[in-house]
Amino acid sequence: MFPNKTILKIDRKSKQALYLQLSNTFIELIKSRKLLPETKLPSSRALAENLNVHRKTVVACYEELLLQGWVESIAKKGTFVNANLPELNVQDFKFDNQGKGTNTTGFSFYKNEELARKYPKMKDGFMYLNDGISDARLTPTEDIARIYRRICSRKHIYKEMSYGSLFGNEKLRKTLANYLNKTRGLSVSYENILITRGSQMGIYLSSKLLLKKYDFIVIGETNYTSADSTFLQSEANLARVSVDENGLKIQEIEEICKKKSIKAVYVTSHHHHPTTVTLSAERRIHLLNLAQKYSFAIIEDDYDYDFNYNHSPILPLASHDANGNVIYIGSVCKTVAPVFRVGYLIASKEFVNEASNQRRFIDRQGDALLELTFEEFIKNGDLDRHVKKVMKVYKTRRDLFCRLLEDKFKDVFHFEIPKGGMAVWLTLNKKYSWKTIAEIAQKHKLEIGEWQRYDASNSGHNSIRMGFATYNEEEIYELINRLSKTMNEVK
Amino acid sequence: MFPNKTILKIDRKSKQALYLQLSNTFIELIKSRKLLPETKLPSSRALAENLNVHRKTVVACYEELLLQGWVESIAKKGTFVNANLPELNVQDFKFDNQGKGTNTTGFSFYKNEELARKYPKMKDGFMYLNDGISDARLTPTEDIARIYRRICSRKHIYKEMSYGSLFGNEKLRKTLANYLNKTRGLSVSYENILITRGSQMGIYLSSKLLLKKYDFIVIGETNYTSADSTFLQSEANLARVSVDENGLKIQEIEEICKKKSIKAVYVTSHHHHPTTVTLSAERRIHLLNLAQKYSFAIIEDDYDYDFNYNHSPILPLASHDANGNVIYIGSVCKTVAPVFRVGYLIASKEFVNEASNQRRFIDRQGDALLELTFEEFIKNGDLDRHVKKVMKVYKTRRDLFCRLLEDKFKDVFHFEIPKGGMAVWLTLNKKYSWKTIAEIAQKHKLEIGEWQRYDASNSGHNSIRMGFATYNEEEIYELINRLSKTMNEVK
Repeated sequence: MFPNKTILKIDRKSKQALYLQLSNTFIELIKSRKLLPETKLPSSRALAENLNVHRKTVVACYEELLLQGWVESIAKKGTFVNANLPELNVQDFKFDNQGKGTNTTGFSFYKNEELARKYPKMKDGFMYLNDGISDARLTPTEDIARIYRRICSRKHIYKEMSYGSLFGNEKLRKTLANYLNKTRGLSVSYENILITRGSQMGIYLSSKLLLKKYDFIVIGETNYTSADSTFLQSEANLARVSVDENGLKIQEIEEICKKKSIKAVYVTSHHHHPTTVTLSAERRIHLLNLAQKYSFAIIEDDYDYDFNYNHSPILPLASHDANGNVIYIGSVCKTVAPVFRVGYLIASKEFVNEASNQRRFIDRQGDALLELTFEEFIKNGDLDRHVKKVMKVYKTRRDLFCRLLEDKFKDVFHFEIPKGGMAVWLTLNKKYSWKTIAEIAQKHKLEIGEWQRYDASNSGHNSIRMGFATYNEEEIYELINRLSKTMNEVK
Repeated sequence: MFPNKTILKIDRKSKQALYLQLSNTFIELIKSRKLLPETKLPSSRALAENLNVHRKTVVACYEELLLQGWVESIAKKGTFVNANLPELNVQDFKFDNQGKGTNTTGFSFYKNEELARKYPKMKDGFMYLNDGISDARLTPTEDIARIYRRICSRKHIYKEMSYGSLFGNEKLRKTLANYLNKTRGLSVSYENILITRGSQMGIYLSSKLLLKKYDFIVIGETNYTSADSTFLQSEANLARVSVDENGLKIQEIEEICKKKSIKAVYVTSHHHHPTTVTLSAERRIHLLNLAQKYSFAIIEDDYDYDFNYNHSPILPLASHDANGNVIYIGSVCKTVAPVFRVGYLIASKEFVNEASNQRRFIDRQGDALLELTFEEFIKNGDLDRHVKKVMKVYKTRRDLFCRLLEDKFKDVFHFEIPKGGMAVWLTLNKKYSWKTIAEIAQKHKLEIGEWQRYDASNSGHNSIRMGFATYNEEEIYELINRLSKTMNEVK
């Protein structure tokens, strides 16, 4: 009798029900044409005896096969392999059950490799430069988790756990409207707020709504590279304008507007990314006036509003926007830790409505439990307390970092002490190249990273952005030490 | 002296520092041209006396204004409003501080209103039909929150809290690979897995990578409408094929392939959305063979794999895919609650890599803390236990729901008892129209919702999908009761 005990292997220790083990083996036999269409299967009684299993197991197996369509039952004749099953064209098996996964793709798809960032592989014992990231060791993670758990224990929390608002949790939107109106001079209601997953989603949604192929968006000669790539995703044209110590040169934007229609200007007005300079009051007004005159959008990415060491934060462009030109993007959680992906996009109701429609296609909705957690975190003052605490720490780190840079690398680097943010814009003496430094730094277990990305327009500025906030004092000394060893070899 | 005490109002009870209140008022005066460029400001001593504040406060205020560029300091002459400030063109103020928000948009953007779904407004005391959603009251929310909090207390958890992998947490990917290989007959490694935020993100990413304007994707005559809209977002052409009791008619796909090139077929093979039928074995093999022959992708959305009442789950197409044609999409959390947005996209490494590049633009990365939570939830068997538990509940609900439908609406509705899933595909006798029913149902506090969306190709099938899993027994009786009252009026 075929199939028999040798072929139909049963593992009595497996958690999988016997009838399922059996039916899956049958399916494999049928697929691989070891059992051909129209083959008669043994009677359930005979097979049960042969395999030494209960007859019910075989009956269940045959029912399963029948239901899935692998076999057909013909009255008074028995069970047969489905006569109409086509042959499965199986190429040489490309899968690898040893956990290496398949490498074959059986179809073509659109690639956009030039937009992919090459993140360095993490290596043991290495220190990694970053472009200004907060230190997650300072995050009040347990406090946040405690709030999260408390929220999950609320009696009617299940109401927040199904498909919900495309705009994000309404309570958070209201609390946020209040908080931002009070701290940033905005005058918005919760209906102007879409909760996003971090600033990146705000940039993405704005890009989707504003830009199609051939549309123009204005950005800085140096700019936040993730924003650049996002706009390129929409196949838009990037028009770059100069950046000096007062930020984007708005006069150049005016010249562009006279010649062609632009859809938007992307600006990191508070601290220009990557150079850390602040857009001056004069240019702010100029930009707002141009936006009104030429009806373009200002995407204001206020990524590090909270971090100012020498003065109070400067009110965003959005606080002066009386004509609905500004799309204001920020993130509650830049401040706390990147893992908590709660951000916001603030604009006219009309724009926010359309952004929410677009958001539905991406991931349907946010995480209401996390949003409620941050609603409490903001409302009860935890966020403000956290900012105050880490500000002191980061200021100390900035001061130490800049002092050491000045002491050790006077003739190598030029930089201004940043008034805020988490990074220094470091210009290398033209004698040296970042390429060489990055290579030699490897020997000293220092990863400079993708230094090239800061000069997208090939201006040869020879500068990179160097974050200081992630490292404690000891680590800053160590970082500078590795950089010193590197530079000694470079020289 | 101008400005004076009357103009420069100070609120000593406010949490905002006095110097900031003062500088913000100055900015408003300058913006609104009540203080014109080149106006000399009072000396800090004089203003301090006038306002009855400490002189340091005024000095700090002036420094702030200087730093922001609103004023300039001329040696030995004093402080002046910046001579170069352009006038801010302020239209009639469209903002509304009373919390109604702005309604003006000062720029144009792309709208796609026909793709927007109109969600019904939630009204008190109403019951809402849905298309098959789990009951969040059965979710082990507190267990999940406990795991979350425990994970947040781990000593080195901060390492997971910064910018991390674009693919999702590696631990979860490994656990998931194991789990799916064991339960669904896949043979993939973690490198074939991209963690997404729910199935929707998997559909979105696939659509982005596969479809550009004019590309063809094949879908069912009836189909999951959110998938339809997602593909339309890419401006692709939708080619619809018939659906019968064995699922998509694959023969029709073959006919299409002979005539033109298609990029992909979207299929909900396990239970076709919305009609709930299962794709037969014969058609499964036929589809896989076609995909190989014509090099198209199969987007297999296995949205309710776990829910089968009459038989074990049917192995997905992906388990038979030897040629890398299948993109397998699912969600751990459909089963648990929509709020936990952890899903996956499984395909060749090459495709997964590109999808992760694309994902970076959308929201950078997932929520590693939630991903680690579900890693534990799966690994320690909680997920399986949960599925077993709710399966029993949903089966009871299905049985009751279908029995009552049969008892009360024999001549009104036609339907097959679904073998799995959380919804019934309900065909209305041609004598009646859903439009009328939906209208009358309102009187009985029953919201039928967007019944039109199930007939995207205007075939006039007169059917809708009606979820039963969300309601407990009492609620099912009440729902049927309201539907009865409605039908009595319709008849």
